[in-house]
Amino acid sequence: MKKLIATLALIIAAPLALQSNAALAETEKTKQVVYHVNKSDMNTIKAALRNVTNHINSPSGPETQIEIAVHGGGIAMLTEARNDPQLQAAIDNVKAHDVEIKVCANTLRGKNLDVKDDLYDTKESDVVPSGVAHVADRQAEGWAYIHP
Amino acid sequence: MKKLIATLALIIAAPLALQSNAALAETEKTKQVVYHVNKSDMNTIKAALRNVTNHINSPSGPETQIEIAVHGGGIAMLTEARNDPQLQAAIDNVKAHDVEIKVCANTLRGKNLDVKDDLYDTKESDVVPSGVAHVADRQAEGWAYIHP
Amino acid sequence: MKKLIATLALIIAAPLALQSNAALAETEKTKQVVYHVNKSDMNTIKAALRNVTNHINSPSGPETQIEIAVHGGGIAMLTEARNDPQLQAAIDNVKAHDVEIKVCANTLRGKNLDVKDDLYDTKESDVVPSGVAHVADRQAEGWAYIHP
Repeated sequence: MKKLIATLALIIAAPLALQSNAALAETEKTKQVVYHVNKSDMNTIKAALRNVTNHINSPSGPETQIEIAVHGGGIAMLTEARNDPQLQAAIDNVKAHDVEIKVCANTLRGKNLDVKDDLYDTKESDVVPSGVAHVADRQAEGWAYIHP
Repeated sequence: MKKLIATLALIIAAPLALQSNAALAETEKTKQVVYHVNKSDMNTIKAALRNVTNHINSPSGPETQIEIAVHGGGIAMLTEARNDPQLQAAIDNVKAHDVEIKVCANTLRGKNLDVKDDLYDTKESDVVPSGVAHVADRQAEGWAYIHP
Repeated sequence: MKKLIATLALIIAAPLALQSNAALAETEKTKQVVYHVNKSDMNTIKAALRNVTNHINSPSGPETQIEIAVHGGGIAMLTEARNDPQLQAAIDNVKAHDVEIKVCANTLRGKNLDVKDDLYDTKESDVVPSGVAHVADRQAEGWAYIHP
């Protein structure tokens, strides 16, 4: 009897799982947006992360690819996060939804910051040569722009 | 005699009216722009409304469709306007030129604000699910973006 | 002998010079970006000029045409520069790389400023009827937008 139920469960569940995969495959990322974070003010930085979270949860969220580009004072998002668990959680949350955070090499050089020692959860591949050029290049590729 | 004058007036006025309609029809809105207002600072909010007014009065004005998207602190534009006749006049003026003001539902929920009780001259159809997603979606549709 | 060397030098140099011209001709400006400067805060204004310099020096720099549009408080970039040699040098430097600075006629009227008497190194042809309309029109032409 247990086996019959298990078999029935499989028969019912299998097409549902397939359907769910298909549904996921259907929500292609047809929209792209780059959030431009360049001020050290922590209220603006935290608001930017809330904005991104709201964007993810909006009706357009599933079809939208999101990047955050930090440079200048905006690098505080990643330096401050090293000692701020709440900020860490906000960053972890957006990254769990495939948001990438891009970091400006000019800013790292100018402020003498090390990717691994000074920035929260950042790797070399997150670094772009110039934050502003990255933001402009993304728009040339069709991305939208938001200045939080 | 009165009837003759009235008839002549109609004969003269009719083609003028037609011409006027044609002229209006010619200034199609071929450009679109969304103004992104997300700070509670009243100087920035009032500057945004002045910017929109200048945009309307610019050579590009007649062919430009304008929206203002308010969210986060920017909602102060509509909460403060309830008790600020000067701000009301600025809002009334841009609306008289077909500018729409879109309001973020997340902000209303987060700040526990009621569309009819707490916001100046706002209706349910002005509310969008997410202010930032709206701003990005508009750009995906080809709209320009301005952060005042 | 000297003549031979000179002739040989010409033979060697000529194709190099041709190649160099060709290389310059190849870096066509395929990307455009307008920087929107509308705040009087001098830190933001100086950061904007640093951003533009970094943009020029980025890998995308050679193929990117850059404009700075100043209006409202942002006009301080040009009024303050008259008495600030460091700011002058920053402006001179970006202009030497073909960056144009566009100035809003509404702002000049509103603040009663004269192009020649009150603004650093500005001429009548730098003035646009409306700064915000210019910024939106540029985007309609395919330009990217950056708010420093």
